[in-house]
Amino acid sequence: MAAPRIRLGMVGGGRGAFIGAVHRIASRIDDKYELVAGALSSNPENAKASAEDLLIAPDRAYSSYEEMFKDEAARDDGIEAVAIVTPNHMHFPVAKAALEAGINVICDKPVTRTLEEALELEKIAKNSDAFFALTHNYSGYPLVRYAREMVERGDIGNIRLVQVEYPQEWMTEPQPDDNKQASWRTDPARSGAAGCLGDIGTHAFQLARFISGQKVSSVCADLTAFVPGRPVDDNVHVMMRFENGAKGMLWTSQVAPGCENGLRIRIFGDKAGLTWAQENPNELWLTPLAAPAQRITRRDDYLDSDIAVRGIRIPFGHPEGYLEAFATIYTDVAEVLQAKREGKTVDIESWIPGIDTGVEGLKFITAVLASSEADSRWTPLNP
Amino acid sequence: MAAPRIRLGMVGGGRGAFIGAVHRIASRIDDKYELVAGALSSNPENAKASAEDLLIAPDRAYSSYEEMFKDEAARDDGIEAVAIVTPNHMHFPVAKAALEAGINVICDKPVTRTLEEALELEKIAKNSDAFFALTHNYSGYPLVRYAREMVERGDIGNIRLVQVEYPQEWMTEPQPDDNKQASWRTDPARSGAAGCLGDIGTHAFQLARFISGQKVSSVCADLTAFVPGRPVDDNVHVMMRFENGAKGMLWTSQVAPGCENGLRIRIFGDKAGLTWAQENPNELWLTPLAAPAQRITRRDDYLDSDIAVRGIRIPFGHPEGYLEAFATIYTDVAEVLQAKREGKTVDIESWIPGIDTGVEGLKFITAVLASSEADSRWTPLNP
Amino acid sequence: MAAPRIRLGMVGGGRGAFIGAVHRIASRIDDKYELVAGALSSNPENAKASAEDLLIAPDRAYSSYEEMFKDEAARDDGIEAVAIVTPNHMHFPVAKAALEAGINVICDKPVTRTLEEALELEKIAKNSDAFFALTHNYSGYPLVRYAREMVERGDIGNIRLVQVEYPQEWMTEPQPDDNKQASWRTDPARSGAAGCLGDIGTHAFQLARFISGQKVSSVCADLTAFVPGRPVDDNVHVMMRFENGAKGMLWTSQVAPGCENGLRIRIFGDKAGLTWAQENPNELWLTPLAAPAQRITRRDDYLDSDIAVRGIRIPFGHPEGYLEAFATIYTDVAEVLQAKREGKTVDIESWIPGIDTGVEGLKFITAVLASSEADSRWTPLNP
Amino acid sequence: MAAPRIRLGMVGGGRGAFIGAVHRIASRIDDKYELVAGALSSNPENAKASAEDLLIAPDRAYSSYEEMFKDEAARDDGIEAVAIVTPNHMHFPVAKAALEAGINVICDKPVTRTLEEALELEKIAKNSDAFFALTHNYSGYPLVRYAREMVERGDIGNIRLVQVEYPQEWMTEPQPDDNKQASWRTDPARSGAAGCLGDIGTHAFQLARFISGQKVSSVCADLTAFVPGRPVDDNVHVMMRFENGAKGMLWTSQVAPGCENGLRIRIFGDKAGLTWAQENPNELWLTPLAAPAQRITRRDDYLDSDIAVRGIRIPFGHPEGYLEAFATIYTDVAEVLQAKREGKTVDIESWIPGIDTGVEGLKFITAVLASSEADSRWTPLNP
Repeated sequence: MAAPRIRLGMVGGGRGAFIGAVHRIASRIDDKYELVAGALSSNPENAKASAEDLLIAPDRAYSSYEEMFKDEAARDDGIEAVAIVTPNHMHFPVAKAALEAGINVICDKPVTRTLEEALELEKIAKNSDAFFALTHNYSGYPLVRYAREMVERGDIGNIRLVQVEYPQEWMTEPQPDDNKQASWRTDPARSGAAGCLGDIGTHAFQLARFISGQKVSSVCADLTAFVPGRPVDDNVHVMMRFENGAKGMLWTSQVAPGCENGLRIRIFGDKAGLTWAQENPNELWLTPLAAPAQRITRRDDYLDSDIAVRGIRIPFGHPEGYLEAFATIYTDVAEVLQAKREGKTVDIESWIPGIDTGVEGLKFITAVLASSEADSRWTPLNP
Repeated sequence: MAAPRIRLGMVGGGRGAFIGAVHRIASRIDDKYELVAGALSSNPENAKASAEDLLIAPDRAYSSYEEMFKDEAARDDGIEAVAIVTPNHMHFPVAKAALEAGINVICDKPVTRTLEEALELEKIAKNSDAFFALTHNYSGYPLVRYAREMVERGDIGNIRLVQVEYPQEWMTEPQPDDNKQASWRTDPARSGAAGCLGDIGTHAFQLARFISGQKVSSVCADLTAFVPGRPVDDNVHVMMRFENGAKGMLWTSQVAPGCENGLRIRIFGDKAGLTWAQENPNELWLTPLAAPAQRITRRDDYLDSDIAVRGIRIPFGHPEGYLEAFATIYTDVAEVLQAKREGKTVDIESWIPGIDTGVEGLKFITAVLASSEADSRWTPLNP
Repeated sequence: MAAPRIRLGMVGGGRGAFIGAVHRIASRIDDKYELVAGALSSNPENAKASAEDLLIAPDRAYSSYEEMFKDEAARDDGIEAVAIVTPNHMHFPVAKAALEAGINVICDKPVTRTLEEALELEKIAKNSDAFFALTHNYSGYPLVRYAREMVERGDIGNIRLVQVEYPQEWMTEPQPDDNKQASWRTDPARSGAAGCLGDIGTHAFQLARFISGQKVSSVCADLTAFVPGRPVDDNVHVMMRFENGAKGMLWTSQVAPGCENGLRIRIFGDKAGLTWAQENPNELWLTPLAAPAQRITRRDDYLDSDIAVRGIRIPFGHPEGYLEAFATIYTDVAEVLQAKREGKTVDIESWIPGIDTGVEGLKFITAVLASSEADSRWTPLNP
Repeated sequence: MAAPRIRLGMVGGGRGAFIGAVHRIASRIDDKYELVAGALSSNPENAKASAEDLLIAPDRAYSSYEEMFKDEAARDDGIEAVAIVTPNHMHFPVAKAALEAGINVICDKPVTRTLEEALELEKIAKNSDAFFALTHNYSGYPLVRYAREMVERGDIGNIRLVQVEYPQEWMTEPQPDDNKQASWRTDPARSGAAGCLGDIGTHAFQLARFISGQKVSSVCADLTAFVPGRPVDDNVHVMMRFENGAKGMLWTSQVAPGCENGLRIRIFGDKAGLTWAQENPNELWLTPLAAPAQRITRRDDYLDSDIAVRGIRIPFGHPEGYLEAFATIYTDVAEVLQAKREGKTVDIESWIPGIDTGVEGLKFITAVLASSEADSRWTPLNP
């Protein structure tokens, strides 16, 4: 008998939101969750209507997360986990409340709005029995995981260079006031002091960290807000130095016409290079020195990798995309939580981005902001 | 309030099967269905175990489709639709029984094993109140639908050429006897007289028909079984003539090393060409005569097309793939069925492949087999 | 001391011509030729003016090829070779006259307008001491040659499939009368009964033959003239059977909008596939069964191939193109001719397309025309 | 009558050299030059043997450039121009001598080893009647020129971002002592203090300057020598600020496995982006905001640009490459020199990189070196 589905609640993600719907689809794809409760909006009417849209029972459609955590805790069939899909500034209080209530957390990134909050949440998480996952969803792609394995087993040699970029075009022009997605992202009070840097720069940073295994020691950054009047950065240039001597560049932008969601990473060792691009996620390039490049695809027949293969649902040549990678994170968490019901732990835990990743991301944001303000002075992540 | 989910049963798709799991994921992605019953295997033990895997209630885990249709008909909460995901030879009896029981059908392709069966099923379907959908899933891709709209509105001019291909590599070598996927596909008793032709050639044919809007009038074909001892074709070469004077070629193969799932179509009119390839489904190329090629992507901001946009779940640059396209078919059917509950019809019906498509596919298979046996004589689809 | 340059004459290629200029550039690139004489046009004034453009001495600017061959034969420094770059119908008389005068010939393709002429020229060539080269220039690309070597040494196993295509767009619309390039190509009296088939179909056929090493035994063809009033084909569909049991398809068209010069070949054996496309000639794909595809590039450091490496002039990553491949044919011929001065032969001779290739090409054209006229009956190349 | 060919001498480029052969092919492609004299090596025997290889008359095979300039000046048919293809440190003295002798100069890049030399040469060039061209050959590609025109006429709007990169792999490992190409490039005495930066970084800088029309005001750089013991940089990271407020990044490396000759530029304005990559030079991408990307190719039928079209020799779809772009620079210079014979000037002069470009390149090198030494301090190009 398959284990019962995880009972899931959601905070945020009501009508008009974007990432909440993504989390819900991700939770359904492998059928490991059922969404049974929600505090989907800070607006009570929207919360109620949104819950109806989602066929959530009326008595579990809450108008605040505090209420949801309290009431659900009192039920036998109360939620086991909560997905936090609010704007950034709400991540901290909701996650804190959940962890303190012993509810497992699946939190969108960046983990919090400030490094101070992230460090505090780290303490809370380490003292809680609840599990904390951060949806750096790009780590869910099978070939991203395979790339990390290739690096770990030495396929590309000693790493020298990490070139990562994440350009988009969608904020090239001033946004109309009624663009819900844009408005909170450019409001420091809700999104944090970082604009593009926090929204997508953290994904680029996390991907580089995840695949390369290397830690950035210091950054030299130049941030710009190209659109007149925009209160946060919309373009980020960073040079990076890594602890082992590697170097790198990170570019992220939301004012690059023609770039849709151009997350792309290239890592070069002294034996070979690796290239992966999010818009074409079913291929990974291994480029050995003085030999033909190899196009590795999402195949369970030749990838000698449990971690990559477990993220493959359909045969090679049938493209899987963003939602499937996101779903893999959810499914991995489900495996952890189902084991936890029986007091067990599972290996997959180490592949799921958690609070450590969140803290590191905020350290990166903080150092980049500081460097840029100091006329691009090299700034350590751990001063 | 959102409409209640469609109550779905499934025939086939037990442990070890492939396409059943795809249908289940497709049905879940947009949350319009719940799988409540199944006759998942002709082997009762496998049927039971498979139902347990899927958290289907034990009393609704049937060991035959006949039993399922009978028992479910007697329940107030009985299934409204059935997904048929068996090997080809079972499509006909199961679909017939479902339609005659007034249960809506979502059937995998090809619709039946023979043209005779297809024609009989056509009669049954036309006399039934139940809805019949055929999962030619590639028609669910937003850019495939957009391509059809471009053709319809004359963007490429009068169509002259349709070049379609669908090569795979996975049957290049003789298959071990225990490969469940390969074994029924190469058994004429279960798969039909066509091998590769029926398995994937029909997809290529249907895609060409769907996008171009043109009807094939006759075919000139050369079938081959390259692997010694294989009782059905593993490579198909076809020249096509269309009713309006257009011509084309269709190539499909399962012995082409390096080809994963290479469905690709190019259509040329007297003003422009169109190219779409399944392995990179989020782009569509419009190539006007004597002008730069245009790379059209899956974007709700510039595609002036309701039908394309309704299949888009996430922003441009975040790849959607095979499962999402499949899910779109399921979601379209759900919309039809939810309207049907209230005695209504909806426009989307005309975009869903149905029994007509199934019959046309069998006519194509039949004519290709006949042409190849007659030393590639031009053979009409409607003699 | 380097050997003196080959003294070259040219027939055709005056003002307004296309391929003559290509031959001249090709002859200069490696500095093995000097163009010293020409009968550049059948129009005496154009012949004279064209010679002046090219800095050919006035006394060697001839108004007929007969005159050129006679006068040059009488000079100590007379031409050693002639490049024939006229419309197709003149290839035969000029080549015949040259060979009979003992002048080496570099002839554009197709070798003649009819098979009868080709067979007669074959006899003349075999009885002549002069060397005869046919500029099937695509065989000059280093990676085309390397592909042939890979096939020969068994890298792809036993060949089963040869899929070749060569679409263009430039004759999609009726041509204005003053388009010199189009007018002779669509005039059967000058170009032969084949239109697109002779102009570019022969290149596709030759490339397939050159790389695969396989001989076509019979063809099943469907020719079309899509543009109203066009007296020759502008689209060609062919199914092919090879002597060893392989099969294939050939498509060539001049009415395919978006296709510039889309010569592309894919060959599949039972171990691997090979893909090469003329518009991106510096890469060759080896696609082994159940393993990552390999992108082989034009590199002298890892290609273990004398024949490929000799065609490389500049380091990898610096693209070489059409003119360089053409030049390689010229340079190979120069090596033959310089050896011939000393009564020697050189191995490279076997890599240069000659009269045999020309005859085979006309057999292909003839069989394709016959098949198409016989409602696509399978027609042998050697009846 | 065509104008007589330009009489060309060459300094450097003897046996074992690389770029000399490239210059010679480039000079021959359009038949505007004849190579009549050379001081091909500082080693007299090599100089003599190399001249014989090239069929240069023995009396014009010089063992020093001083001798060549003196003797040729005394001949009626003496050289009109000299190609300087030596290692970097010899560019200055040879160019100086040529300019002072009134001989036109075609000089490889970078123009000199130091900024001081470049500034001195600038004065000499401005006082000389001789023409000075710098072979930044990538500016010869038709689509690079077209890109510049598109920028100039506002097709991409106000420029905000310039992202340029030029990675290679060939120096990933320590070079054997006998690699002639590597040895002088890593010897500061011959190549200058910059390694990779001077060798290819200048190309990237020049391309960015050429297409964008923007001037870099200051740089923030981090140079690395990854290979132990290498005395000059093999990897260069630079952030750039432009005079008009644009920003950019430049990455160049010679230790990036899988990168052959990866010069690539992306420029983003507030209306559209442009992308061009040297390894696929026959296409240019225009990416308008919120509209399909356009793939512009090297076509004389739709490019509304005299400057782009003049660099096209063969029809679209027939790839032209590195040598053709290089030849275009040579042909442009020939047009200038042929006009100069008659005391005329021609518009094309403004498209040919000259001493200004050379000085700017050295300013860039100098500022990057200074910034890197100052822990990546922002450093102005014109302090």
